[in-house]
Amino acid sequence: MSKMDEMAVNAIRILAADSVQKANSGHPGMPLGCAAVAYELWAKHLKHNPKNPQWINRDRFVLSAGHGSTLLYSLLHLFGYGGLAIEDLARFRQEDSLTPGHPEYGHTVGVEATTGPLGAGMGMAVGMAMAEAHLAAIFNKDGFPVVDHYTYALGGDGCMMEGISSEAFSLAGTLGLHKLIVFYDSNEITIEGSTEIAFTEDVAQKMQAFGFQTLTVEDGNDLASIGRAIEMAKAETNKPSCIIVKTQIGYGCPAKQGKASAHGEPLGAENVAALKEKLGWEKTDAFYVPAVVYDHYRAIADQKAADEAAWNAMFASYSEKYPEMRTLWARYYEEKITADLIDREEFWAFTDKPEATRNLSGILLNRIKDWLPNLIGGSADLAPSNKTNMSGAGDFSRHNYSGRNIHFGVREIAMAAIGNGLALHGGLKPFVATFFVFSDYLKPMARLAALMGLPVTYVLSHDSIGVGEDGPTHEPVEQLAMLRAMPNFAVFRPADATETCAAWYYAMTSAKTPTALVLSRQNLPPLQGSSKEALKGGYILADSQKAMPDGIIMASGSEVELAVNAKAALAKENIDVRVVSMPSLDVFATQTSEYRESVLPKNVRARVAVEAASDFGWDKYVGLDGACVTMNTFGASAPAKTLFEKFGFTTENVVATMKGLLASR
Amino acid sequence: MSKMDEMAVNAIRILAADSVQKANSGHPGMPLGCAAVAYELWAKHLKHNPKNPQWINRDRFVLSAGHGSTLLYSLLHLFGYGGLAIEDLARFRQEDSLTPGHPEYGHTVGVEATTGPLGAGMGMAVGMAMAEAHLAAIFNKDGFPVVDHYTYALGGDGCMMEGISSEAFSLAGTLGLHKLIVFYDSNEITIEGSTEIAFTEDVAQKMQAFGFQTLTVEDGNDLASIGRAIEMAKAETNKPSCIIVKTQIGYGCPAKQGKASAHGEPLGAENVAALKEKLGWEKTDAFYVPAVVYDHYRAIADQKAADEAAWNAMFASYSEKYPEMRTLWARYYEEKITADLIDREEFWAFTDKPEATRNLSGILLNRIKDWLPNLIGGSADLAPSNKTNMSGAGDFSRHNYSGRNIHFGVREIAMAAIGNGLALHGGLKPFVATFFVFSDYLKPMARLAALMGLPVTYVLSHDSIGVGEDGPTHEPVEQLAMLRAMPNFAVFRPADATETCAAWYYAMTSAKTPTALVLSRQNLPPLQGSSKEALKGGYILADSQKAMPDGIIMASGSEVELAVNAKAALAKENIDVRVVSMPSLDVFATQTSEYRESVLPKNVRARVAVEAASDFGWDKYVGLDGACVTMNTFGASAPAKTLFEKFGFTTENVVATMKGLLASR
Repeated sequence: MSKMDEMAVNAIRILAADSVQKANSGHPGMPLGCAAVAYELWAKHLKHNPKNPQWINRDRFVLSAGHGSTLLYSLLHLFGYGGLAIEDLARFRQEDSLTPGHPEYGHTVGVEATTGPLGAGMGMAVGMAMAEAHLAAIFNKDGFPVVDHYTYALGGDGCMMEGISSEAFSLAGTLGLHKLIVFYDSNEITIEGSTEIAFTEDVAQKMQAFGFQTLTVEDGNDLASIGRAIEMAKAETNKPSCIIVKTQIGYGCPAKQGKASAHGEPLGAENVAALKEKLGWEKTDAFYVPAVVYDHYRAIADQKAADEAAWNAMFASYSEKYPEMRTLWARYYEEKITADLIDREEFWAFTDKPEATRNLSGILLNRIKDWLPNLIGGSADLAPSNKTNMSGAGDFSRHNYSGRNIHFGVREIAMAAIGNGLALHGGLKPFVATFFVFSDYLKPMARLAALMGLPVTYVLSHDSIGVGEDGPTHEPVEQLAMLRAMPNFAVFRPADATETCAAWYYAMTSAKTPTALVLSRQNLPPLQGSSKEALKGGYILADSQKAMPDGIIMASGSEVELAVNAKAALAKENIDVRVVSMPSLDVFATQTSEYRESVLPKNVRARVAVEAASDFGWDKYVGLDGACVTMNTFGASAPAKTLFEKFGFTTENVVATMKGLLASR
Repeated sequence: MSKMDEMAVNAIRILAADSVQKANSGHPGMPLGCAAVAYELWAKHLKHNPKNPQWINRDRFVLSAGHGSTLLYSLLHLFGYGGLAIEDLARFRQEDSLTPGHPEYGHTVGVEATTGPLGAGMGMAVGMAMAEAHLAAIFNKDGFPVVDHYTYALGGDGCMMEGISSEAFSLAGTLGLHKLIVFYDSNEITIEGSTEIAFTEDVAQKMQAFGFQTLTVEDGNDLASIGRAIEMAKAETNKPSCIIVKTQIGYGCPAKQGKASAHGEPLGAENVAALKEKLGWEKTDAFYVPAVVYDHYRAIADQKAADEAAWNAMFASYSEKYPEMRTLWARYYEEKITADLIDREEFWAFTDKPEATRNLSGILLNRIKDWLPNLIGGSADLAPSNKTNMSGAGDFSRHNYSGRNIHFGVREIAMAAIGNGLALHGGLKPFVATFFVFSDYLKPMARLAALMGLPVTYVLSHDSIGVGEDGPTHEPVEQLAMLRAMPNFAVFRPADATETCAAWYYAMTSAKTPTALVLSRQNLPPLQGSSKEALKGGYILADSQKAMPDGIIMASGSEVELAVNAKAALAKENIDVRVVSMPSLDVFATQTSEYRESVLPKNVRARVAVEAASDFGWDKYVGLDGACVTMNTFGASAPAKTLFEKFGFTTENVVATMKGLLASR
């Protein structure tokens, strides 16, 4: 290794150690151990343009071991990304700084994904590699590889232990994603001690079983070996590659290297000094980097810019030669959907027969797929049940990356991470699907979508005890509350065709909020009064004749019908109630207080909420004087109709509940 | 295969097919494909006593592919378990039947675990095998293997694809659990089609990488081969074994075998008839089993009973020879904890200095470990942070199965499944631990614990933006709502030492409800007024002087201090409020309405809830006229103190909120 390379690598180490020390909080061990790998990759292999971090055809780099954020921040600073200054590094983990504890997408320029929950970055990287493969298949022409980049991910023992990575890697192997290159930072240390205590599997053998090429770098500080491994990974054109790099956690810090204590706490001032001495750093001042090192990084960055310039020239020729492709490109990368769909009569058109909302969703998906060519997605092996097959759109496989139906296999959490990766890559509109009860499995990745502001769509069918015979393991009860409680996440549980259209419309036009479509297995009738007002999340479906209703019945999905029937029954007893359909409590909560008051006047206190799920969260609208017709057990196995009666979801019970409230006043 | 064996195997197939057909709902494909494997195991290898399904030293069998429930029900019926009659099979998937859609622990005798969510059974089986290894290490004496049984699990492609199984198998291999034997029903079919589309990994190679012996049975109907594989699995004494059995989904049904359509829908009356013809079944009547077949199974069951008789005799001698061990046995298997702990002063004793509830929890855990020798558990590689190390209790490892500290590795969902398995096995009191935000990962298995009524304890530290610098990926916001919304699940978020004691007390004495202990990273002061009343979930910590308080401030955990300070500040302005500490909204909700009314009188409407988390769910107690001091974003990365101020968790804000409510009245 040249002296300059050595200094460049050590600059990463010094900045990372200083950042953590200044913050008095953070994870120095991983950046010290992986600095050489990161430098070799970023300086000599990664196709990127620090002057334009958004360059569409850049290689993607995901730091799956998100706790090593100072590794990434140091790289971004040294390469001159977006003005990330030394002062920003010095404000690591401080309020409103550009350098939060874990990398945050959309917050710090050059961060491709929010990471921290281990393994998540691996799943998202697989999604990015799938996006690249798909877009390349759609857009590339002979001599014009306009979509042509690698996706790199870097993670440690934790990332390899998490089940999400096994799921994602198994699918990546099946799909032969050869432009995915995973670095495994193998340092044999976890928080509780040596990997001997909990992790003795043969990772190389496992990755081979998944269909990866594996390469091992015995010395994680040997740039030449790392470089050769990267070249060999690129040379493999049938399989993804995993480069196992043997590193030492906390490398360079005499008192800490190779120890668990290097992982998650500052080295200490003395140890930082010892690190600088050991590495032969010329000054001990915090955040000191010699000018020659900056010059070195700047020179590399200047060269890198030429890659984009060449691509821009190629893309200009491509646009000229294939104007229809340039037009299509705009539909993938540039189109704003806006009001286009909402005004299409054929989008909202449905016949009047009862239909399961999952079926309606399937019909809509097949309408939308023609308008949005970049809609891509699939199910965790439940497409026939979720109704998510896009007919004629092809299956995404190693033999056909242009297919838009993805077969995720029985891998819910990796599916959701891949959905995030598809969205992060850019150019695509992803959806994923499973049974609603299994939203439990994908929740950690839905949270990341919400945190990153990615408009991923979750098609979640079989939404209640309407599941019927499959019983409690398959019957969602608390999942609506789980998802509704999540910030920046919209849950729609539509009651009929019109509301299902509204839900899909919301999902497809959402820019920064993921959307879950919670759909019935069983048929639901079209409702008189349902309308595009559903886009407000809650609206008056059937009003009282009175200025001030005697009461309000609110419901979502399959239970709106009960509310409507109860209103009719109550009317016969001269009780005049309003029915409010609440397809999305989340969206309703974002409406103006005036609108919410107009739907749910504060003075009307006889309020009943009806939903075949937990009451949790409904009290916000029911209040201390109302009542819920809901359920707080896990359901049972029996035909759906039986279960609705068993658990009290009947018109009679809704009527009795409302009358009970009115009588007690 | 003998004619009798053949008929015995086919009886399973016929009963399964008839059950599904009668219900007009269910999954016939797997039972038809796996009948021979199941028969060979249950008839010739499995140590069980159908006359006493609860025999402590029985082999465990977990049907991880829970959708194949009719396989299990047919076996239980044919072996004469608990009077499971042919009429019960005929009521498959009907209301209140003993044969629900997926096997339910505690509902149907002989069902060792509730399964259905794929992969879960694999994790639970690993837990059972760990329980056996631990108890054997504690109790066995030379010549007295009083704990000595195998754990078998049977799953299909779906179970192998789910990440939970990779996590669990990797740990099983590390731990060398040689008495764990996993059957992989390899039929190359998933719901969406051939495994080619999503699952081409080399499962044998993967399992070897995890440290398993692998054995392959090429013909899943060849009893002799299956038997030999089981014997070879038992002969391996260093590693767990995986027996890969090549089967044909829907075997025996000419129109369906080998097809995805065999998986999840009835065969149809004609196909059932064709099945019976193909298998040479002597009558076509539904649920017909020849008397000779019943006789055959009865004879096996009679022999099996002798195994238990022999064990009983050995246990009697053991008890005589080792009376101290018999006493210890009672503490593991028979002791009711009841009021033992609550009256121990030393359990509740703490000094008065401020302390993080995670630290208090760690101290308590170390007190409890001496009183409850069967307490066992650990963390997903965060023990130093979760404070879950039991000092002097040893590490559970392949070299020391008597250790009580389990190192789960970074595997939250498998950890929780293993916790379930430890509890299901009997004899042990398990706890598991991770950061609270990562309860997202383990939620699917916590749900199974709640559904099964297992008193697993979840130690979940770092419970809010008090996490501080690690930022949004590590800061729980909606997790309290997620867990509180779950039926039969108790969440405690204690405010100080006394409440932490109450929380642990609740967890340790709970018989049928899992408990989450949600603990602070940061120090909290001891609160004047905190008491054992915390066991009621909510109680008056500091009361108003007035019979009817001017308002009520409720809070949990770290925010109770704010409520107390706000009360003092309001008092200076002659506003006299009550402070209600709500360590467990779940438990409070189970109190009598009289008690709840005494704490939260309905007429007091100026109510403020304070919690550094989502408001979701608090409205049940806040009502339409109250207000929440909560947060509905994902937090930020900065020192904790900064974040509490940034997000409005200050005495001033609580005071202002209460005054705002009072002013608007």
